[in-house]
Amino acid sequence: VPEPDLSPTRADPRYGYFGPRGTFSEMALALVPGVDTAAATAVSTVDSALALVRSADLDAVMVPIENSVEGGVTATLDALATGRALVIVREALVPITFVLAARPGVTLDAVRRIGTHPHAWAQCRGWAARAVPEAVYVPALSTASASAALAPGSGADPPYDAALCAPIAAEINGLTVLAHDVGDNPSAVTRFVLVARPGAVPEPTGSDKTTLVAYQTDDHPGGLVEMLEQFAVRGVNLSRLESRPTGDALGQYCFSMDCDGHIAEARVAEALMGLHRSCARVTFLGSYPRAVAPGRVNGSTSPSRRSGTSEADFTAARAWIDKLRAGGS
Amino acid sequence: VPEPDLSPTRADPRYGYFGPRGTFSEMALALVPGVDTAAATAVSTVDSALALVRSADLDAVMVPIENSVEGGVTATLDALATGRALVIVREALVPITFVLAARPGVTLDAVRRIGTHPHAWAQCRGWAARAVPEAVYVPALSTASASAALAPGSGADPPYDAALCAPIAAEINGLTVLAHDVGDNPSAVTRFVLVARPGAVPEPTGSDKTTLVAYQTDDHPGGLVEMLEQFAVRGVNLSRLESRPTGDALGQYCFSMDCDGHIAEARVAEALMGLHRSCARVTFLGSYPRAVAPGRVNGSTSPSRRSGTSEADFTAARAWIDKLRAGGS
Amino acid sequence: VPEPDLSPTRADPRYGYFGPRGTFSEMALALVPGVDTAAATAVSTVDSALALVRSADLDAVMVPIENSVEGGVTATLDALATGRALVIVREALVPITFVLAARPGVTLDAVRRIGTHPHAWAQCRGWAARAVPEAVYVPALSTASASAALAPGSGADPPYDAALCAPIAAEINGLTVLAHDVGDNPSAVTRFVLVARPGAVPEPTGSDKTTLVAYQTDDHPGGLVEMLEQFAVRGVNLSRLESRPTGDALGQYCFSMDCDGHIAEARVAEALMGLHRSCARVTFLGSYPRAVAPGRVNGSTSPSRRSGTSEADFTAARAWIDKLRAGGS
Amino acid sequence: VPEPDLSPTRADPRYGYFGPRGTFSEMALALVPGVDTAAATAVSTVDSALALVRSADLDAVMVPIENSVEGGVTATLDALATGRALVIVREALVPITFVLAARPGVTLDAVRRIGTHPHAWAQCRGWAARAVPEAVYVPALSTASASAALAPGSGADPPYDAALCAPIAAEINGLTVLAHDVGDNPSAVTRFVLVARPGAVPEPTGSDKTTLVAYQTDDHPGGLVEMLEQFAVRGVNLSRLESRPTGDALGQYCFSMDCDGHIAEARVAEALMGLHRSCARVTFLGSYPRAVAPGRVNGSTSPSRRSGTSEADFTAARAWIDKLRAGGS
Repeated sequence: VPEPDLSPTRADPRYGYFGPRGTFSEMALALVPGVDTAAATAVSTVDSALALVRSADLDAVMVPIENSVEGGVTATLDALATGRALVIVREALVPITFVLAARPGVTLDAVRRIGTHPHAWAQCRGWAARAVPEAVYVPALSTASASAALAPGSGADPPYDAALCAPIAAEINGLTVLAHDVGDNPSAVTRFVLVARPGAVPEPTGSDKTTLVAYQTDDHPGGLVEMLEQFAVRGVNLSRLESRPTGDALGQYCFSMDCDGHIAEARVAEALMGLHRSCARVTFLGSYPRAVAPGRVNGSTSPSRRSGTSEADFTAARAWIDKLRAGGS
Repeated sequence: VPEPDLSPTRADPRYGYFGPRGTFSEMALALVPGVDTAAATAVSTVDSALALVRSADLDAVMVPIENSVEGGVTATLDALATGRALVIVREALVPITFVLAARPGVTLDAVRRIGTHPHAWAQCRGWAARAVPEAVYVPALSTASASAALAPGSGADPPYDAALCAPIAAEINGLTVLAHDVGDNPSAVTRFVLVARPGAVPEPTGSDKTTLVAYQTDDHPGGLVEMLEQFAVRGVNLSRLESRPTGDALGQYCFSMDCDGHIAEARVAEALMGLHRSCARVTFLGSYPRAVAPGRVNGSTSPSRRSGTSEADFTAARAWIDKLRAGGS
Repeated sequence: VPEPDLSPTRADPRYGYFGPRGTFSEMALALVPGVDTAAATAVSTVDSALALVRSADLDAVMVPIENSVEGGVTATLDALATGRALVIVREALVPITFVLAARPGVTLDAVRRIGTHPHAWAQCRGWAARAVPEAVYVPALSTASASAALAPGSGADPPYDAALCAPIAAEINGLTVLAHDVGDNPSAVTRFVLVARPGAVPEPTGSDKTTLVAYQTDDHPGGLVEMLEQFAVRGVNLSRLESRPTGDALGQYCFSMDCDGHIAEARVAEALMGLHRSCARVTFLGSYPRAVAPGRVNGSTSPSRRSGTSEADFTAARAWIDKLRAGGS
Repeated sequence: VPEPDLSPTRADPRYGYFGPRGTFSEMALALVPGVDTAAATAVSTVDSALALVRSADLDAVMVPIENSVEGGVTATLDALATGRALVIVREALVPITFVLAARPGVTLDAVRRIGTHPHAWAQCRGWAARAVPEAVYVPALSTASASAALAPGSGADPPYDAALCAPIAAEINGLTVLAHDVGDNPSAVTRFVLVARPGAVPEPTGSDKTTLVAYQTDDHPGGLVEMLEQFAVRGVNLSRLESRPTGDALGQYCFSMDCDGHIAEARVAEALMGLHRSCARVTFLGSYPRAVAPGRVNGSTSPSRRSGTSEADFTAARAWIDKLRAGGS
């Protein structure tokens, strides 16, 4: 798998991530070959991180886009869909492991208030109900910021006694781990994307994904079916589909989607052209190499293709039409 | 509407029609500008007519393909679908009017046996049951041959007393017309096609049709739906669909179809390429100007198009993809 | 497989077939247990045969409906679709074998004109082109009538020297067989149906077919797809689909179809109700046991079913809805 | 519109809402005729509110389910989909108006930290970026709890200076309103649902909605299209569709949906039965009267129906099938 060509080409691209230090986003960025996360910029919200790329203060930022337990990260989906164009140039999958961490000296039975990000709470609340049934939840901006506020010497006085966070965040902030692996779903994984300004599209690798947002022309019954048929008729599989409100009124949606394949492939290009013709608007958010889920063999994640939809099939069909148009048979 | 360019280009193309003289096919050929049917060759079967084009003994022949009462002309459909490639370069619609004709001196109440082509009988049997209930039907190779055998001086002794045929055939053969307009359906029309060897495809006129035959890869449930979706997703309307047995076994069909549009148009080309990719085999049988039904204004026969399927829509979508592939947004 | 209950129930139902004696229709009728074809009535046209059932002069007639080489028998399809309601109560598959037969003393090299039914000619013309290239084709009402007219002592003087017909017809009529097995396709088979007045529907056997004709409400693009989806969404496979003109104008069709399953089954009933709601008109032409193709094991002809479409699935779904409607969960 | 019959029937049902006092949920509950919100129980999380209904400590609770700006309320969607069955018995639409409120004496230019619920922040951040660009966001459990913590005499010391909340929450808590109507989208509306234990389904009113969650059997391409066709083929419109992860792995989704119509109607019942047959699991979450959006005339929100899908069409189709099954025609 060749490395994606981050754009604009710089000898020394400036990276950022949804932070502070110790978030899962930093772990995802660390998976990119050649990136030193210590030199990268931690940005406290997804919105701000993307804004820094739009303004060219950063060249690429790693942000969460989808969680196997909580679903789409709506802040990311919405920030990508609006504003100056950005594209995804890489994805990363990070297994999610939570610890309950507190200042040294605090014991588990003394924990009455737990601070963390809402998505993290959602993934640990089963454990919390059993292990610390008296504790209440206090929302925080991120799992890392929840633990950072507890760091001895931080000067903060957060309204909670313990934080649910990544193991690395507990370590960075000098906290005591009261309980390991407290996530309710041991196979939880979060998908992150590296977002850059449009430039050269990463080369196709044979196992790629394409992300886009499509807006229907109106809310007629069957409109979504027609949209999905643009993919089905070319044998392009959708691996993610989420409706997002357009903000205009209840019941008015756009659809954020990942499909298998690369815009350089005929089957994907034709499906996208079909959407472009039939939708009010289509926003292309990048073609990039598919990440392999941790612990999986590469081949097992490749979906089966409908017969007649390979690149060779498209090439042969085009040659046939060209011959017919020239008067052949 | 420009004239189709018959191929191969000859100063003096040799025409034929399904005949003898006096058939509706001759009337259809007479509708082609510049053609003198007196100089054209009448051929007694559709099979033979097409064979003479394949062997280059003729350059183009007019044969019936579809009747508004009897349906597809299976001899034509099957002969076009098999053997060396032929293409349709023009279509013609002829209103069908039948007369009952006999040798001079024969009266209506003396008619006991009526000779005609099976399709013609099917279109007049209601009238016959009322007007000559005693008469039985005797099949003939064509309506014109049925009347020709009755011609005084023909030397034939046909096993019937009167023929159902076109008015012109009665006139040519010197017969007396016993009854006019005996067809059960006064709006009956037959569609004829002018068939030639492959060559330059007639120029698109903006109101064209394309004919093809598609063979499915296997008999899986939903296979026909998938085939039809190749058209629907590009907004291409089907104006004729007929299943024909492949001859291998009961339940194994190919599909003979006419769709609106010309192979030079992106929407038609893309639909045909979709079939080419997903079907076992596709036979292209020509793109040619749509004929206007007699008595109709041209515009009224143009079907409405689904939004987003004009040539401009396809061109814009292609430009968008090209820009994205180059790294734009 | 229980025997269909022919209706109206009579101690001694009167049978007919498309004849004269010696047609393949008689052979098909002979396959019905307990029927003595010698006592059955031969009727010279399909139209007349069905009319005799409608008028209650006969109780059931065997007529051809589909041929593996020539396709649908349009006379049968159209006669079933119009007029007083009739239903199919049984089907039969007959392998088609042709002989070339002539009066005693005629030799193969003396044959100049061959009489037969157009469908039979279509199935033997390849052989004829090789074996008797000089011979021309003369159409007849049926293969059996073509051979009967040659019978010594018939008093007829048919305009041909030999007939293409079933072996039994040559035998019945005292003709000499000049060539055996002259059909171009050795696996050719014709499907016949036994047609009766509506009455008790034959009991479901677990391997049944249902025949119907559906008329669309208008000629809108995608209308056929919607019709087919009524079947697909309930997992009902179509084994035959033919468009037939309604006779009103070119491009106006109804669809004659066979689907797997019995009207007593929920999946078929629901699909038919869906058609009834969405079509201009639906004509039910019977549910009856599926015939096993000669030489095939029964199981091999049963199509695979889409999961979730068994009778048990429908029953469970109904029970679930009834519980929910009553306030359960 | 008859009132929904809350179940179990009690002379004095106990109501709750997602609170504390002053949330939009309380405003939604106040729209239910005969309900005194002062006597209702405010519950601090959606999870807990639903748990109190499951345990029969409350009889019905009002919780948010969808916001025209932020999309589905995932906590509600997920809590409804899992655990003991609950059903929606009513919906309410509440226009969303935000104020920025602070303790008396605080002025707008002194605001450095703003506390509110993440969804509220998302709906006001445009205004905040312009009006108080220096202020940072501090997440809170609800808009009402953010304002309650600022209430003089509450004894709390929240980590922010001002709260984004409903006007009523500012009033209840004795706060000063620093800015009115600070939402970025003036037509923002949130949809709330009243959730109860299963019991008698509210009577159909002719303008109803049905909510459900469907789990596909596997992740095959086209699976969602098949699911949507269960609705389309019966003319049932979907007004909301959201994918939610099942929690098992990335790319494994269930679909939360609202459709038009009532389970007592044949078209809805048949679509649900179709899903029940073809899906791994379907959870019914209630049929209830459609709420009219504030400021809209009732009729304008009724979607057009596909022809052939009225209750009368279903009844007629059922009568037709019953007659055919009995041997009629």
